[in-house]
Amino acid sequence: MKWVNVLGGIVGAAALLGLGIILGHFAIPKGSYVPTPSIFQDLDLEILESIMQQLDASRIRENLRELSREPHLASSPQDEALVQLLLQRWRDPESGLDSAEASTYEVLLSFPSREQPNRVAVGDPTGNVLFSCRQSEQNLTGEQGGPDVVPPYAAYAPPGTPQGLLVYANQGTEEDFMKLQAQGIKLEGTIALTRYGGTGRGAKAVNAAKHGVAGVLVYTDPADINDGQSSTNETFPNSWRLPPSGVERGSYYEYFGDPLTPYLPANPSSFRLDPDTVSGFPPIPTQPIGFEDAKILLCNLQGASAPAAWQGALGCDYKLGPGFQPNGDFPADSQVNVSVYNRLELRNSSNVLGIIRGAVEPDRYVLYGNHRDSWVHGAVDPSSGTAVLLELSRVLGTLLKKGTWRPRRSIVFASWGAEEFGLIGSTEFTEEFFSKLQERAVAYINVDISVFGVSLRLNSPPGQIPAPSLGGLSIYDNWIRYFNRSSPVYGLVPSLGSLGAGSDYAPFIHFLGISSMDIAYTYDRSKTSARIYPTYHTAFDTFGYVDKFVDPGFSSHQAVARTAGSVLLRLSDSLFLPLNVSDYGETLRSFLQAAQQNLGVLLEQHSISLVPLVTAVEKFEGAAGALDQRISALQKATPDPLQVRMLNDQLMLLERTFLNPRAFPEERYYSHVLWAPRTGSVATFPGLANACSRAMNTSLGSPAWAEVQRQLSILVVALEGAAATLRPVADF
Amino acid sequence: MKWVNVLGGIVGAAALLGLGIILGHFAIPKGSYVPTPSIFQDLDLEILESIMQQLDASRIRENLRELSREPHLASSPQDEALVQLLLQRWRDPESGLDSAEASTYEVLLSFPSREQPNRVAVGDPTGNVLFSCRQSEQNLTGEQGGPDVVPPYAAYAPPGTPQGLLVYANQGTEEDFMKLQAQGIKLEGTIALTRYGGTGRGAKAVNAAKHGVAGVLVYTDPADINDGQSSTNETFPNSWRLPPSGVERGSYYEYFGDPLTPYLPANPSSFRLDPDTVSGFPPIPTQPIGFEDAKILLCNLQGASAPAAWQGALGCDYKLGPGFQPNGDFPADSQVNVSVYNRLELRNSSNVLGIIRGAVEPDRYVLYGNHRDSWVHGAVDPSSGTAVLLELSRVLGTLLKKGTWRPRRSIVFASWGAEEFGLIGSTEFTEEFFSKLQERAVAYINVDISVFGVSLRLNSPPGQIPAPSLGGLSIYDNWIRYFNRSSPVYGLVPSLGSLGAGSDYAPFIHFLGISSMDIAYTYDRSKTSARIYPTYHTAFDTFGYVDKFVDPGFSSHQAVARTAGSVLLRLSDSLFLPLNVSDYGETLRSFLQAAQQNLGVLLEQHSISLVPLVTAVEKFEGAAGALDQRISALQKATPDPLQVRMLNDQLMLLERTFLNPRAFPEERYYSHVLWAPRTGSVATFPGLANACSRAMNTSLGSPAWAEVQRQLSILVVALEGAAATLRPVADF
Repeated sequence: MKWVNVLGGIVGAAALLGLGIILGHFAIPKGSYVPTPSIFQDLDLEILESIMQQLDASRIRENLRELSREPHLASSPQDEALVQLLLQRWRDPESGLDSAEASTYEVLLSFPSREQPNRVAVGDPTGNVLFSCRQSEQNLTGEQGGPDVVPPYAAYAPPGTPQGLLVYANQGTEEDFMKLQAQGIKLEGTIALTRYGGTGRGAKAVNAAKHGVAGVLVYTDPADINDGQSSTNETFPNSWRLPPSGVERGSYYEYFGDPLTPYLPANPSSFRLDPDTVSGFPPIPTQPIGFEDAKILLCNLQGASAPAAWQGALGCDYKLGPGFQPNGDFPADSQVNVSVYNRLELRNSSNVLGIIRGAVEPDRYVLYGNHRDSWVHGAVDPSSGTAVLLELSRVLGTLLKKGTWRPRRSIVFASWGAEEFGLIGSTEFTEEFFSKLQERAVAYINVDISVFGVSLRLNSPPGQIPAPSLGGLSIYDNWIRYFNRSSPVYGLVPSLGSLGAGSDYAPFIHFLGISSMDIAYTYDRSKTSARIYPTYHTAFDTFGYVDKFVDPGFSSHQAVARTAGSVLLRLSDSLFLPLNVSDYGETLRSFLQAAQQNLGVLLEQHSISLVPLVTAVEKFEGAAGALDQRISALQKATPDPLQVRMLNDQLMLLERTFLNPRAFPEERYYSHVLWAPRTGSVATFPGLANACSRAMNTSLGSPAWAEVQRQLSILVVALEGAAATLRPVADF
Repeated sequence: MKWVNVLGGIVGAAALLGLGIILGHFAIPKGSYVPTPSIFQDLDLEILESIMQQLDASRIRENLRELSREPHLASSPQDEALVQLLLQRWRDPESGLDSAEASTYEVLLSFPSREQPNRVAVGDPTGNVLFSCRQSEQNLTGEQGGPDVVPPYAAYAPPGTPQGLLVYANQGTEEDFMKLQAQGIKLEGTIALTRYGGTGRGAKAVNAAKHGVAGVLVYTDPADINDGQSSTNETFPNSWRLPPSGVERGSYYEYFGDPLTPYLPANPSSFRLDPDTVSGFPPIPTQPIGFEDAKILLCNLQGASAPAAWQGALGCDYKLGPGFQPNGDFPADSQVNVSVYNRLELRNSSNVLGIIRGAVEPDRYVLYGNHRDSWVHGAVDPSSGTAVLLELSRVLGTLLKKGTWRPRRSIVFASWGAEEFGLIGSTEFTEEFFSKLQERAVAYINVDISVFGVSLRLNSPPGQIPAPSLGGLSIYDNWIRYFNRSSPVYGLVPSLGSLGAGSDYAPFIHFLGISSMDIAYTYDRSKTSARIYPTYHTAFDTFGYVDKFVDPGFSSHQAVARTAGSVLLRLSDSLFLPLNVSDYGETLRSFLQAAQQNLGVLLEQHSISLVPLVTAVEKFEGAAGALDQRISALQKATPDPLQVRMLNDQLMLLERTFLNPRAFPEERYYSHVLWAPRTGSVATFPGLANACSRAMNTSLGSPAWAEVQRQLSILVVALEGAAATLRPVADF
């Protein structure tokens, strides 16, 4: 009590002094300034701890049951029903947010025809059908039947009914097709059977079409998803493994966002491209099938044996084709017939936004989102994330409605539509609110598939993870055990992956330059080599699957809720934003070293110096270190609210300085000079790496080498600009 | 005194209450918060008035004398000497700024050869020279001679020695050459004589080359600059008019910025284009000449009479050519020989920056700049602006060094290099500090040619002029007398022109979306029809010219200093930024009305609706009006420093929301959807206007009509984004 009095006295005296100066020197203010307590509001660790305790595993489980009860494909009535569920939760008078709204875009989706199901068959030359692949997955738990389970298909693959001899093309990469051609295999007019992995879905058809292939099949090899297991008793519902009839659905569109409205929100009145002129759709009919059916096709192929790396776990020697072997199940001249009847449709898809107004800085937004749409029931993808989102918003909403808490900054919860078709809801949102988000967004947190398995994985640009230090939970220890790196400053620390374009964070980080993070509990990669959780994008990704195999007891879901909740609270409530800029320096340094080691000699041969880049990285490191020190000093002193705001603006806007909309004109939406897609294996700055790999085999002085120099300059300017943003604001 | 006590009491009590809440609910702050007086700092009208009084006409005159003593072409030793002068002034211990630095870029300039002067001559078929144009201006005042006076030339015009029959091509627009062609005049291989005006300098050569013209001459017709007067006793040094030998120099480069480093700062290590591949240079040799010489060429032409609108004041009937009339000064088959020996050179050019650190918000920059380089002495252009700049920085620096004043926000004074070659210094600066400026720049004020004549002209996007209300000076009344418009809200108000790309504001407004203003005293257009002040870019633009003819007594210079100083102080010191967003709404409304009236029917015929645009404009108007009201309310209440900052951020960033780097990919640097270059006469949104004029004669459903729709969507998204930025920050 005494301490309060002393403080009160100091403030009162200072205010008097202040007023005297104002009256003597400045214009007379219109009223007295009453510093409200909230202006000093910092993270309250007791509230944080109490939120952590309230995040309830059983409620997450109930959320998941409700969210995944029915298939909820984007724009379906069930998807719309979930929009209402979210609105109802976020408008709940006891546990809701300040406000919640749904907003709808009119977007181009792709669906299989109900009347004419897609079909894959083997036919003899006289037209007799000798074998047909399944048109839907086996109804193993009673949840795989019914009209709402969309049959397996390749979204955005064009309709068509090619037929031809079958070839096996491994993962359908450019190299795979080159290899087939090098073996003398005539690809023109064939049907290529490929397996998932190695490259994007759509890329398989793009690569195939370049070689004259007429149609593409895609399956998941048990070697890639099931550690080789494929029998019924070793797979779901007897284990978490993919059953033989399971088929991964997915978008085969090359870009993201609504295909008809690049860079524009898909509002009803927006300009739309003619669908016939849209680039990025697969050029030839494509259809995914289960490994049960793939086995029949693949194990009957004739021709040379496929290379060892192309072999899988279907229990036969994989041959390349073309066509079937004479002594197999089909006559040697049998062809494979791929009938695709997919249709493009303009559909309404909604995002739902729920807002908690910030008490002190309502114009700083911490965004937390996940998509809502699934391919079928989508218990893991995306409902495990939404179940966590709803529990977190319930706990925060309850505090809010009770009046015991309000964040310093605004929190925006988002449930995105049509992510499965290419991050459409989130991309349209970023297109619509481009300016406001660039001005005000502090960070975007994505929790899509919240639990794959049992170790925590976070993907994020560096410098953006306030280490979760949740007493007794050992999330941190668990994380560092599975994913770690050695920091020159801190020693062994948890490591963060890089953000690609796998979920709704992509438009935030790549298009808008907003610090982003993707949080998930994943599985122990020393125990399984599965590419992803086995029932991904199949009709077997159900509540029972999660409840029985993925996270019985939902403790991992709870851990994700706590981790994500902790990150969210620290971002929304900390006086100083918990963004560590020196960590970013470590990444730049590692990119630089990779460039020096792997590209240095090559660049020197072309008289291209890395010295300006070295200098720029050093400037960044220097500015970042000095900024850290200024923050430490201010934290010890009495920070003026504007001083805090100015520093936070530097932290918030750092990520924006890495954007250059003119850096990669051929890469739609990708403007971030550090995180744009990188080809090749050198873990360095993507523009430099890509330009080098394109220039590699061209002559001295070629345009490709000029582009290397241009990319280097773009990078140097961005890093110098980033360093300038971090330097004391009064030193222009 | 009593009032102070009451206020002190309130503050003290509130602080106690506040601290109680903090201790009970929030984390314990690290120390007591002492509100410093500066946090409420608002514009002090007494200080403003005192600054106005201290701005001294005779000191401006002395500055001008010093600045224009010698020719100071970009990158010349005299230009470098002025860099030192600026540094010395801005580092003066009694009247300097907080800091001053020069920064240097390596830029591509173009100069005539000293060894081989450019030459324009008439020769007979045997090669005899019958007549040569002057290679330099007549030395009328002793200042037009000597090695530092660069001879007249067309910067960036390529070297070459074409010769051919002369034609007269009026202003060298596309239409002018079409008209010549329609008259059956064979243009292939001719030399086209054109006069300044009607289109950009470089465009004359671009248009000419399309028709096979081999070389271009450009002169200034006395009708366009001298109200028809051309005799020696009616021109300088006997009046302010252009003497017969005067020649306008200028950059003939189509874009702005260093030609070799578009979008990148021209640092020594930056990637540079191959000069041979640079676009935007004139395609054929070009040379400017005086009207004295032009008369000899033009009045000897044969052929049909030029149309009435093409006639000028050289005292003869202008004919079209080709070639000379038989009874004139030259044999009919004489040809004109244009010898251009210009050279491209990489040169160092410096900007000088002088900083006054802001006391409260050092991370908000109010920029005030002008270029330093001139074609010859450049007394009007640019030294009249720099003379004002130096006087203003002296007065402010003196207050600063005395400790009696420091602005709320930082002030950045800039002296740009190489503006005459295409706004190079300012453009490279915006390229280098792109991120920092976009984040933090409040506004850019440009004062280049500060005094043309006797009425004030300001060019700026709307909403950005705090009305100068300088007691007794009547700048406002003078302004409103010459340039006014009727506002629905305020009645008759001074009108602002639009910002083109005529000076260093261009990269700030068009490339970075920073609110910009160009201030100048101009002349009474009812008394002269001169395109610009008559000695523009000639060797006659000297101190004596200004002192005797343009502004004897320097009262107009003083008025500009006061106006610009008032704008600067209001931007740097006002608690709320003096940017009126509702004024912007008036411009949008006028653009919309022009579109509806002039393009509405056409668009309807192509099923393109303006309704979304109408809605967007309405949303903007609504949001702007509501924001104005919130500011008024806050001004009456006790604004919390963060509330003020948040509102100011909305005001500052509004201009940024109109930028779209993908809107006009063919227009280098132009990203502002409201102020990009507009062709055609409809005063509406440029993207829409340009797309319509391109689509006009194409068929229904053409790609050009699709582009109209795309431009409309880009515009709607920008306006909706602008409205979103203005709405209350907590309403996402």
